[in-house]
Amino acid sequence: MKKVKIALLGLGNVGRGVWMILNSNKEEIMKRSGYEVEVAKILVRDISKPRGVEVPLGLLTTDFNDIINDDEIKIIVEVMGGIEPAREYMIAAMDKKKHIVTANKMLLATGGDELFEKADKEGVMFNYEASVAGGIPIINGINESLTANKVERLYGIVNGTTNYILTKMAFDGLDFNDALKEAQEMGYAEADPTSDIEGFDSQYKLAILSSLAFGTKIKIEDVYREGITKIESVDIQYAKEFKKVIKLLAIVKDNDGRLELRVHPTMIPENHPLANVYDSFNAVLIKGNAVGDLMFYGRGAGDLPTGSAVVSDVVSILRSNIEIENLNPVVKNNLWVKEISDISEIDSKYYMRLTVADRPGVLGEISSVVGENNVSLRSVIQKGLDVENENKVTIVLVTHMTKEGNIKSAIEELYKLDAVYKINNFIRMEDFN
Amino acid sequence: MKKVKIALLGLGNVGRGVWMILNSNKEEIMKRSGYEVEVAKILVRDISKPRGVEVPLGLLTTDFNDIINDDEIKIIVEVMGGIEPAREYMIAAMDKKKHIVTANKMLLATGGDELFEKADKEGVMFNYEASVAGGIPIINGINESLTANKVERLYGIVNGTTNYILTKMAFDGLDFNDALKEAQEMGYAEADPTSDIEGFDSQYKLAILSSLAFGTKIKIEDVYREGITKIESVDIQYAKEFKKVIKLLAIVKDNDGRLELRVHPTMIPENHPLANVYDSFNAVLIKGNAVGDLMFYGRGAGDLPTGSAVVSDVVSILRSNIEIENLNPVVKNNLWVKEISDISEIDSKYYMRLTVADRPGVLGEISSVVGENNVSLRSVIQKGLDVENENKVTIVLVTHMTKEGNIKSAIEELYKLDAVYKINNFIRMEDFN
Repeated sequence: MKKVKIALLGLGNVGRGVWMILNSNKEEIMKRSGYEVEVAKILVRDISKPRGVEVPLGLLTTDFNDIINDDEIKIIVEVMGGIEPAREYMIAAMDKKKHIVTANKMLLATGGDELFEKADKEGVMFNYEASVAGGIPIINGINESLTANKVERLYGIVNGTTNYILTKMAFDGLDFNDALKEAQEMGYAEADPTSDIEGFDSQYKLAILSSLAFGTKIKIEDVYREGITKIESVDIQYAKEFKKVIKLLAIVKDNDGRLELRVHPTMIPENHPLANVYDSFNAVLIKGNAVGDLMFYGRGAGDLPTGSAVVSDVVSILRSNIEIENLNPVVKNNLWVKEISDISEIDSKYYMRLTVADRPGVLGEISSVVGENNVSLRSVIQKGLDVENENKVTIVLVTHMTKEGNIKSAIEELYKLDAVYKINNFIRMEDFN
Repeated sequence: MKKVKIALLGLGNVGRGVWMILNSNKEEIMKRSGYEVEVAKILVRDISKPRGVEVPLGLLTTDFNDIINDDEIKIIVEVMGGIEPAREYMIAAMDKKKHIVTANKMLLATGGDELFEKADKEGVMFNYEASVAGGIPIINGINESLTANKVERLYGIVNGTTNYILTKMAFDGLDFNDALKEAQEMGYAEADPTSDIEGFDSQYKLAILSSLAFGTKIKIEDVYREGITKIESVDIQYAKEFKKVIKLLAIVKDNDGRLELRVHPTMIPENHPLANVYDSFNAVLIKGNAVGDLMFYGRGAGDLPTGSAVVSDVVSILRSNIEIENLNPVVKNNLWVKEISDISEIDSKYYMRLTVADRPGVLGEISSVVGENNVSLRSVIQKGLDVENENKVTIVLVTHMTKEGNIKSAIEELYKLDAVYKINNFIRMEDFN
């Protein structure tokens, strides 16, 4: 059996998963890769920190030079996260013709170009399956299995924390703050949950997926972003009445060469496969012009699922004949140039919830304003009196397809009406047609 | 741009899809593979047959020698189906160092070993993504993305025809024959639907998937098989009462090195992702010891979805550096040896529907017989009188987990009771724990 040495940068959650899998599934990995994989070194910041896993202390080092200068180490597994020094270490490793596996979504989404080009230049493999949707092989799916397709659309539930919160709100009737608290207690949400609940995490992932699916460079700021903090239980209740559920979707659509990229809470039909993705599970639905609808579903986070993606990336390097110099990896994000639409240009249906004066003629005033802005209403629901104030009622509007710009103008105009106290929420709807 | 010539064997449904994709997505394929792909020859049985697609007549040939002797043709795409002459042609092509892409599930399931070994010996690529579940990249998923896992279980809805029929029975209340007729009118079922409705098609596919997922050789006869012809509307109604749906599942479980392999109608919880796979869609759920639950969902048949898988296989060959001789493909079904369980050894829960005499004490008699055979009942439902005969009633039993052998003995004993007229159906249940 041939042997190969690898090094881990980082031994947090994902690093621990990688270590555990390399040990418990040693035989599988050997048979499938043709190599016995030895972890020769693990870079950590603090050697004395407890790791929740038994690792021989001799493997741990705080000095990257121990790794970069060891010519026997052929593959670097970067699971430390963050921008620096992860970026610097990977560049240095590629200079030494070491192959790279990384799980670093933030770095890929913001500085992926440099890394792809460096790998191409040095003829080393650069794999990053674990950077999006944990154990779900969506990167490989796009890069290897959709090569015969023009991708038309992609919809993803790529953040487990927010999906857990929305599931709890829908099924257990929790409000946002209680659901968040529960997610934190369960370990699904960080102490500072901003990156998840404000949609930044999904934004990174959509940038990565889109750049691969469309073979083009996507910048983070090309992706419009809204989080789920504005979702109230009452919105979820109304969604149910329309046979919809609310999910934080990452969406990209190719409209004749112009891409619209957006992350926001979205009302989707309750019988759609994405609607049935619960708890912390992730899923990505891709529509290709040949394959039609294709969905990948699984665990988007966690030590072992993410570790599974990392280790499969290692196996894929071993199989691609590591002994050949200059493996000729393909840079996959520079095949096409695409224009990016502004969010105001998108077409969508919308749900709007308003608090208005409870007097005759209000519905008519609202309908007129909405109509004047070229928004056509599909349904209007007026429920009983608000508890807080006897003179106020809630009205829910659902529109037909319209430009987002029209909705924004309508909202501006609605605020000028005396009868409109507040536009509590507006949520985009998607029916996947 | 480099150019490569390929040949198609067959121009039926899938062949047409491949032709259409190679033309409509030419630019995508060129950019992603680095090659301009030219179809140099297409083998057909009858040149004058209308094909529903515009193909230059000069490309068509009825003589395989035109293809095998053309050294410029580097890749053979076998989309003719059936055992012979497909097998013979592929062997001959590999002798000439041509790479192979095939969509032939029947041949792979019955004679795959010979083809894998031949490819290994000749150093040619042998790709077969399209052989299972059409456009869903499940072969690539198992072979490339689950390499870090011990696969524990796999559940598949891999036959679109039966899933369409079961969907129509459940949603439109059709009985089996009417649903089958509709499937035939829609083009989802063949004039002779035996291979689909009796589960043979699923059996082939499960054999292929299992041999890859467990790295072992699986023979067709290792897979227990039942079709869906015994499912009546009333069973679907009862399933609903238990919050279950009935699907034709292909199941494999690894019980400490012993595999159980089976295809049969299965009652599954209505909120499980596989329960929400409707119409002719396919899905495969895999449970790996690291990745957890992973599901792939999409179109399991059709010219373009299946063509998408075929063409992605062509691209994958082009990317693996076709100019190198001896590409060293890995035979993936000879890594482990597994034992196969008999169907009588499986553990399951069961649904049973019986027609029994409508008199006091019958339920007690039945419960005793069932209990004597070590089957413990979870619930018993007795509905009103049967319409046909006032002295007969329907009883539905649901058991706890038990060995199938116990159920079979119980059924034998039940038939000895005077009060039991008929055991109308028994259906295995699965709750994915």
